[in-house]
Amino acid sequence: MDREVAVEPASESTGGAERSSVLLVECADRAGLVHAITGVLLRHGANVVGNQEFVDPGARRFFMRTEFVGVSDPGSVEREARSLLPGDAIVRLIRPEPKRIVILATREHHCLADLLVRHSFGELNARIVGVASNHDVLAPFVARFGLPFEHVPTADLSREEHESRLAHWIDARKADYVVLAKYMRVLGPAFVARYPSRIVNIHHSFLPAFAGARPYQQAFARGVKVIGATAHFVTDALDAGPIIVQQVVPVDHTRSAEDLARAGRDVEQFALAQALRLVLEDRVFLCGNRTVIFD
Amino acid sequence: MDREVAVEPASESTGGAERSSVLLVECADRAGLVHAITGVLLRHGANVVGNQEFVDPGARRFFMRTEFVGVSDPGSVEREARSLLPGDAIVRLIRPEPKRIVILATREHHCLADLLVRHSFGELNARIVGVASNHDVLAPFVARFGLPFEHVPTADLSREEHESRLAHWIDARKADYVVLAKYMRVLGPAFVARYPSRIVNIHHSFLPAFAGARPYQQAFARGVKVIGATAHFVTDALDAGPIIVQQVVPVDHTRSAEDLARAGRDVEQFALAQALRLVLEDRVFLCGNRTVIFD
Amino acid sequence: MDREVAVEPASESTGGAERSSVLLVECADRAGLVHAITGVLLRHGANVVGNQEFVDPGARRFFMRTEFVGVSDPGSVEREARSLLPGDAIVRLIRPEPKRIVILATREHHCLADLLVRHSFGELNARIVGVASNHDVLAPFVARFGLPFEHVPTADLSREEHESRLAHWIDARKADYVVLAKYMRVLGPAFVARYPSRIVNIHHSFLPAFAGARPYQQAFARGVKVIGATAHFVTDALDAGPIIVQQVVPVDHTRSAEDLARAGRDVEQFALAQALRLVLEDRVFLCGNRTVIFD
Amino acid sequence: MDREVAVEPASESTGGAERSSVLLVECADRAGLVHAITGVLLRHGANVVGNQEFVDPGARRFFMRTEFVGVSDPGSVEREARSLLPGDAIVRLIRPEPKRIVILATREHHCLADLLVRHSFGELNARIVGVASNHDVLAPFVARFGLPFEHVPTADLSREEHESRLAHWIDARKADYVVLAKYMRVLGPAFVARYPSRIVNIHHSFLPAFAGARPYQQAFARGVKVIGATAHFVTDALDAGPIIVQQVVPVDHTRSAEDLARAGRDVEQFALAQALRLVLEDRVFLCGNRTVIFD
Repeated sequence: MDREVAVEPASESTGGAERSSVLLVECADRAGLVHAITGVLLRHGANVVGNQEFVDPGARRFFMRTEFVGVSDPGSVEREARSLLPGDAIVRLIRPEPKRIVILATREHHCLADLLVRHSFGELNARIVGVASNHDVLAPFVARFGLPFEHVPTADLSREEHESRLAHWIDARKADYVVLAKYMRVLGPAFVARYPSRIVNIHHSFLPAFAGARPYQQAFARGVKVIGATAHFVTDALDAGPIIVQQVVPVDHTRSAEDLARAGRDVEQFALAQALRLVLEDRVFLCGNRTVIFD
Repeated sequence: MDREVAVEPASESTGGAERSSVLLVECADRAGLVHAITGVLLRHGANVVGNQEFVDPGARRFFMRTEFVGVSDPGSVEREARSLLPGDAIVRLIRPEPKRIVILATREHHCLADLLVRHSFGELNARIVGVASNHDVLAPFVARFGLPFEHVPTADLSREEHESRLAHWIDARKADYVVLAKYMRVLGPAFVARYPSRIVNIHHSFLPAFAGARPYQQAFARGVKVIGATAHFVTDALDAGPIIVQQVVPVDHTRSAEDLARAGRDVEQFALAQALRLVLEDRVFLCGNRTVIFD
Repeated sequence: MDREVAVEPASESTGGAERSSVLLVECADRAGLVHAITGVLLRHGANVVGNQEFVDPGARRFFMRTEFVGVSDPGSVEREARSLLPGDAIVRLIRPEPKRIVILATREHHCLADLLVRHSFGELNARIVGVASNHDVLAPFVARFGLPFEHVPTADLSREEHESRLAHWIDARKADYVVLAKYMRVLGPAFVARYPSRIVNIHHSFLPAFAGARPYQQAFARGVKVIGATAHFVTDALDAGPIIVQQVVPVDHTRSAEDLARAGRDVEQFALAQALRLVLEDRVFLCGNRTVIFD
Repeated sequence: MDREVAVEPASESTGGAERSSVLLVECADRAGLVHAITGVLLRHGANVVGNQEFVDPGARRFFMRTEFVGVSDPGSVEREARSLLPGDAIVRLIRPEPKRIVILATREHHCLADLLVRHSFGELNARIVGVASNHDVLAPFVARFGLPFEHVPTADLSREEHESRLAHWIDARKADYVVLAKYMRVLGPAFVARYPSRIVNIHHSFLPAFAGARPYQQAFARGVKVIGATAHFVTDALDAGPIIVQQVVPVDHTRSAEDLARAGRDVEQFALAQALRLVLEDRVFLCGNRTVIFD
């Protein structure tokens, strides 16, 4: 028996299959929204391959994500939906091209490496257009993957100046999203405001526990029996932005703070990768400071 | 085929087997402790059925738990160990009788019911000697299990007076441990000081996140993707005592605060039951505000 | 500060709120199904409070569950939906009354007790109309909850005769569902055929691993590092029916087969309770031997 | 505030600290073993930094792992322990140098890449001395990490011939362990016998469920609600060797077999990395077909 003969296609390409379009709608909730949108899709002969909707009861807000194929001009679906829906409705047709992302890191490699590997094998559903860091230790590793590395040192710069250089570089790369892969500097309000809901961070704790610095040391001192990692959008409030993914792992008294950091690295990279998949496939809506996720 | 024929003995009694003795030792770490203690056991012909030790590197403190059979006078093991070990060593031989516990509850039944059921079928390794509450709604349920129920209302009483009545009742029951099974009042310092490391609480969040009141409402507002429950010893600092067990469960945006509370109840009762098992089998040591658990 | 003042309503009653209706639809997939059904709801002025749909790509089968309020005659929604949808569509309006269930057990109490406690506090969304067992050891416990207990011994009976007596009793209780709460006898084809997709079992392993007898002993011998429990519908094939819920818990080499059984009991009762909630709220569809679950 | 200032040392080197020695002992259980071994350590002035022992009750077998520093000639501890212990005792002093490992892969990159990244940053506690594959698609990736890649095609070779070439290459590399990082061919008995308890495999299912080929397709067809991965030693019996680590992840009906494969890749690489850490730190004993793990 040859085990290989029966191998599963782990990363089978979709071959010549048509790439699906994604329509996102959100607005204040009212009667008839799903009926109206599905009517548009029906009239255009769309073949709906996935459809999810949610109404947040507190905010009384409607969210819908529809994935469809079989329409020669998907833009016409978007236009008709916008014309039919109430004026406050946000209607977006997602362009099929992968998003452009930049990654900011500091000294730790694990989250960055995980993303570079996925990107390298076409698993990220995005194009990494550059990696920047306030240090240069990761430059040789990034070079292995043939990607541009930008060293933006902080010496002799105010935070504003440093972030201004970063922003200049990011904008030149035309990035859709900024991914903080263990970027260990707090970003200022001007920088954050420049990329609203477009900065994804991985925090090495189960937020809101242990926000701020040295979360594993904090977790060790508190004697918790579970540690975690939180992928979230960055807002002005430190480590308080909308949460996308949280992952946890049990620990016990035999683990030192350094052991927690080691165990935590695996969940950090896992949580960040999962959050990016959701964001890059346009599966994440914001509802106040909470996320609505259609997975 | 008869499935029943092959059933596993789910709660097989230990029959006529000798009940094992448990020796606990803790002291400042130094060389030769394990050798000295195992020497005592060897000389007494003890058959060691379980042995665990741990040295906390920060506190430089040694902890050991040994379970043994085959010694006609286990107290002699304790006495010899105490005489051989340094003066600061805390040496305890655990008496084989089940501990006596009282349960305090308020209005919610799930943690209380779980403990009453386990107790009723001999699975708790403890004797519940009474249930008290600041309300009387749980009285009929407790009556079903034939256990004494004490209603200690708070009306017209200061907190001190109320807690003094509780303490009077607890002491009359000769309780070894006080179990707070969703007892929803903060206990004062005098009460807490009366039962040092003898009060076990279940808090309905993943501490230190969401300490204090309404943790599920807090968790909902923060938009977390995982909720949890924490069983811990009660100290003066609210929800900040040494953690024994933490359990978590994933949630998503479709869950209301009430849904979180419902999902959380299952992990609360599971975490509390597991923590009690550990405490009642003398598997929990304190090392500062952290626990060392030999499970 | 009084912790109780701020308590969350853990099991708040829905008060005078209108009980929602649930419409279930399944049929071969084709274009326009969601649009047609939402059109019916819209015309009847229904206020949709929850809506989920899924198309199984392999079976090309459509499933939809809609929860709505605000319609004085919900039956009219069902009738119009049925008249508009293709002839193969299965359209069901769920009656708002709780389902009637019977529980079969053998000697173990934990799953049964969990259900009796939930039922006793109005948390089960069902009416337990009786408990039967091939043994009588659980009779006193059931009596505490004031529910009828039927002892159906197997002595001197063939399996067919025994099951016939059980079925007679079940039918007299007018049960919608039969819940096997650690009922340790394999049911015969005639009995199973009598209650198609209406028997829910809890199996004490992570199926399909360790089907059949003594799964914890099997798991111990195999040296697995995770054990589990599986709630599933019962079919003719032993332990091979559609899976509703699976729960797992990590274990290690220090656990004996009996320890695994003890640890497993908690996940068994948790998995069965969760599966029953889903079934009793009409959230489970069958798609071949797989389940589609709208939670 | 500069978040970076407070960063934790995620992979801090131990600097000039003495590397600890590890002594492993296993034998039939009898009284006095711990006392004898700790006596040896005491006489040599060893500073014990970690000590764990376990007696398997069924096999009546004793296992002990002791980590110590402060002895100038650790070999003398081993020699004295061997001379004092019964003749059947297996006493091993682990040499401090990292183990040498080779990795076998086929076409999938994720487990391999994870190990190459960890190795590249000094996190693997082993030296990867080569990567071999029956295909050449992974050659460019391995080249990025500057490691030797051996393409051993199967064309025109019998299994025996192919495995003989592999073994020749492995032996030339002087490998201590052979790591199957999604190597998708079943290995023959002669090859397996050549490396007893020295081949670690990652199987993409929660064994013993779904042994053999296409486990994700099997899991999909069975409709399980949890999938997993199993790292185990390879024996003659396919996918039946002693289990080291199992990891699981919940799934639901919306996931296709391909989705399961994608989700599974993350737990595969996590489980394999964790198993290797345990094996490479000499924390894994075999007890029949079960593992005893001192973590």
